[in-house]
Amino acid sequence: MPKLPQRPTELHIFDTSLRDGAQQEGLRLSVNDKLRIAGYLDELGVTFIEGGWPGANPADTEFFSRAAKELELRRSKLVAFGATRKAGVRASEDALTRALVDAGTDYVCIVAKSHDEHVTRALRTTLEENLEMVRDTVQFLISEGKHVFVDCEHFFDGYRANPDYAIQVVRTAHEAGAEVVVLCDTNGGMLPSWIGEIVEAAAATGANLGIHAHNDTSCAVANSLAAVEAGVMHVQGTFNGYGERTGNADLSALIPNLQLKYGWDVLPAEQLGELTRIAHAIALVAHQPLLNRQPYVGGAAFAHKAGLHASAIKVDENLYQHIDPSLVGNDMRMLISDMAGRANIQIKGEQLGFDLTDRELAARITDVVKAREAEGYSYEAADASFELLLRDELGVLELPFEVDSWRVLTEERNGHGLSEATVKVKANGDRRMVVSEGNGPVNALDGALREAVAAVYPVVEGFELTDYRVRILDEGHGTDAVVRTLIDTSYEGRTWTTVGVGTDVVEASWEALRDAMVYGLLHS
Amino acid sequence: MPKLPQRPTELHIFDTSLRDGAQQEGLRLSVNDKLRIAGYLDELGVTFIEGGWPGANPADTEFFSRAAKELELRRSKLVAFGATRKAGVRASEDALTRALVDAGTDYVCIVAKSHDEHVTRALRTTLEENLEMVRDTVQFLISEGKHVFVDCEHFFDGYRANPDYAIQVVRTAHEAGAEVVVLCDTNGGMLPSWIGEIVEAAAATGANLGIHAHNDTSCAVANSLAAVEAGVMHVQGTFNGYGERTGNADLSALIPNLQLKYGWDVLPAEQLGELTRIAHAIALVAHQPLLNRQPYVGGAAFAHKAGLHASAIKVDENLYQHIDPSLVGNDMRMLISDMAGRANIQIKGEQLGFDLTDRELAARITDVVKAREAEGYSYEAADASFELLLRDELGVLELPFEVDSWRVLTEERNGHGLSEATVKVKANGDRRMVVSEGNGPVNALDGALREAVAAVYPVVEGFELTDYRVRILDEGHGTDAVVRTLIDTSYEGRTWTTVGVGTDVVEASWEALRDAMVYGLLHS
Repeated sequence: MPKLPQRPTELHIFDTSLRDGAQQEGLRLSVNDKLRIAGYLDELGVTFIEGGWPGANPADTEFFSRAAKELELRRSKLVAFGATRKAGVRASEDALTRALVDAGTDYVCIVAKSHDEHVTRALRTTLEENLEMVRDTVQFLISEGKHVFVDCEHFFDGYRANPDYAIQVVRTAHEAGAEVVVLCDTNGGMLPSWIGEIVEAAAATGANLGIHAHNDTSCAVANSLAAVEAGVMHVQGTFNGYGERTGNADLSALIPNLQLKYGWDVLPAEQLGELTRIAHAIALVAHQPLLNRQPYVGGAAFAHKAGLHASAIKVDENLYQHIDPSLVGNDMRMLISDMAGRANIQIKGEQLGFDLTDRELAARITDVVKAREAEGYSYEAADASFELLLRDELGVLELPFEVDSWRVLTEERNGHGLSEATVKVKANGDRRMVVSEGNGPVNALDGALREAVAAVYPVVEGFELTDYRVRILDEGHGTDAVVRTLIDTSYEGRTWTTVGVGTDVVEASWEALRDAMVYGLLHS
Repeated sequence: MPKLPQRPTELHIFDTSLRDGAQQEGLRLSVNDKLRIAGYLDELGVTFIEGGWPGANPADTEFFSRAAKELELRRSKLVAFGATRKAGVRASEDALTRALVDAGTDYVCIVAKSHDEHVTRALRTTLEENLEMVRDTVQFLISEGKHVFVDCEHFFDGYRANPDYAIQVVRTAHEAGAEVVVLCDTNGGMLPSWIGEIVEAAAATGANLGIHAHNDTSCAVANSLAAVEAGVMHVQGTFNGYGERTGNADLSALIPNLQLKYGWDVLPAEQLGELTRIAHAIALVAHQPLLNRQPYVGGAAFAHKAGLHASAIKVDENLYQHIDPSLVGNDMRMLISDMAGRANIQIKGEQLGFDLTDRELAARITDVVKAREAEGYSYEAADASFELLLRDELGVLELPFEVDSWRVLTEERNGHGLSEATVKVKANGDRRMVVSEGNGPVNALDGALREAVAAVYPVVEGFELTDYRVRILDEGHGTDAVVRTLIDTSYEGRTWTTVGVGTDVVEASWEALRDAMVYGLLHS
């Protein structure tokens, strides 16, 4: 039976999405983005939020000054990141150390080198001076009233190269008054079974220890757990595993692992129940599509495709899921796909409120889904389009409007593209023609369709197109290939997804736009 | 110092991308796709390739019949997947068991239930009959000349619910002649420290053991390693971690972990050096974008963004990477981004063959990059556009052609979209006007531009647009938002990426198309 480690009396969940997470390729966070994400993290209730490196760049300095005025953290504490002072100066006279003090947080986390070769070759100072830099910086920051954490950079590689020196850095930080000494696998090359022994060696200094793992061996979460089992009380990570190279340990998996697998009290149950929503909200602000197969919070984390599984789930869904998905605010979901059997379609139809117990009816709809998916449609992602298909097949689809025709012209004028769309629509017996300009053909069509329909149904003015994705289905055919467009539309906190397919990005977008409006009108 | 487990005398790398991997949401593989992927896996040299479930669906049956004729495997062995026979019939009379024999492979892998509740509630038979099904099916398949592996479904959960019964299933399979009994964490809920003890209990039966892990706790790779350390000799996984829900253990991380971390002889070094290429090739066929931060093989796996790191890398790149990326066929890469300092730009420029040692020049180019990225450009992904920007700033960009103007009309006729583009281009002193129809506006523009340029440079006929991605940058603004387009173009085995930005998907695509052609002409 599984070993369940003891929860340390004090346990820190330390989020560094805003600092180390922002090192990820393609990830760029404005100060506004960072403030919003900090708000989400506080809502969830992580212990610490590392906000950035004040003084290292203007945006991070601005973040701390705005955070002091604008952020009202109820649950989390803000941490400013910095480094040990430069070699050869006093901490009190080091500009970056001063900037760290000026950030105005109660907590600071400074990075210190703990790998001998990094000290001598990258930092180009002596091993003794590096220890002095740790001692001086920690003591100065404490004298300024700060709680100090020390990140020992490259600690695990450093320990393997020169264990005595790596441990000396931990001891120096601890004796200077650091409240936690964080062991960092900066290059991410560790495996779980190597972590325990090294953590235990560091624990002999008497320091409170933390872990900071990267995912280069695909073991960031497991390495963090191995450190926790060896006694660390402070776990660093980022939301959705953002971070440089392969990313950091993913808190959206670590937190439920600690809480639901070890049975630890990490967050109140109602806050853990917000995990999925908050992971998605952070992904939205970070503008990083959340990986569909992300553990616990991904769209597919509790999704079932295989016909075999779908039939068993009708018996008892807990036979096929490792936790109750509602504990992390996620849902069991049946996928509609060409591998799906009738069972999936029936369950999905029931979830939407349709009776599909008739086997022949369910079989017919399954065939239609398979045929459409063969053309390139994908209903797994587009629940709204699936519902329209279902209503159509059941003969209960009443279209709120009909489209006669549309066209759009795009040209470059004075170096800028301009588009003009014409849409002809019938609704409530009226026929309306609208011409609309837009920044692009899809935008112009969206504008024209919206205006034509809004004359009859003003509610469509409030529908907001929140995401728009285009995918070429048949690689190797370039712009001539079949294109699938997925559009997310939101209205009053509800979001639905529609799909369009065609050899034409405009035609495919048009189909998804039109269906988004139809679906929205049927539900408002 | 890290414990290095002993390599088992016989070690199986068992790929189930084509069977369990294909359960992933959104993943659909045609028979052609499967044959191509099997070819890649054989090139890499995995021990076994599980091809599908013959008899369960027509495509898998066709796969085995075509594989027998068309696949010439040099290194790997093909495995057909199946299940224990139905309750109450003899294996020799069970249709699916017969289909498994008829698949014509030397190796078969059958799934058996090993969790008591799954036997009684999902399969609806007795615990005794389930054991008899295992025994009978294994013995029948052996009598037909097959090597038999048995996947014990839900083994770990089953062991926790009823250890005696789970172990009885292992013993029954082993005693009936199964060559490997595979312990499956089907629901994926295990943690590494729970795996070892359970594997050791199963090992007491004397069976050769395998591991099959899913990633629901973000620990699939670590769970597989924990099982390996407890003595399994057969490791199942999928390429790029494809699979139902959160996916299976990722062989593109497991293989290098075993080879480079444990120091085991898994693949010849030159085959391991193909790992990155093959992982990407499989992703291309599977039509799943390979996660940029995927360990070992991802585009960012050895990429460095932080200015701090970039300066240290100029000292010694091995200080900042956990392995030499060339061992897995990947590269150290400097990212061009608005967080980048001069050091990144200088290293990247050198890689492209430009001299950027002049600090002022490098600083000026860094500023241009930052300004363009603020508009929405992203040079991290678009190396070709970065080179054009660099040449432009250095005054060494000679445009092979110039564009006077372009326009495109898209309309729906008889329910189908049709686009017509006009492009006016100057090249080599000539002015050419071309009008071209296309399936969509970008396709029409691509056709017109290609025809206009090909009159002077026939080589562009060979440029193939292989991927086309569109991203809305400013969420919440719908079709009115700024759009970024990335286009991959290939010619003679070389692929380059260009970026375009605009409020208009057509305008942004046009910019990326034009630059793709310029870059291709400069390099051919």
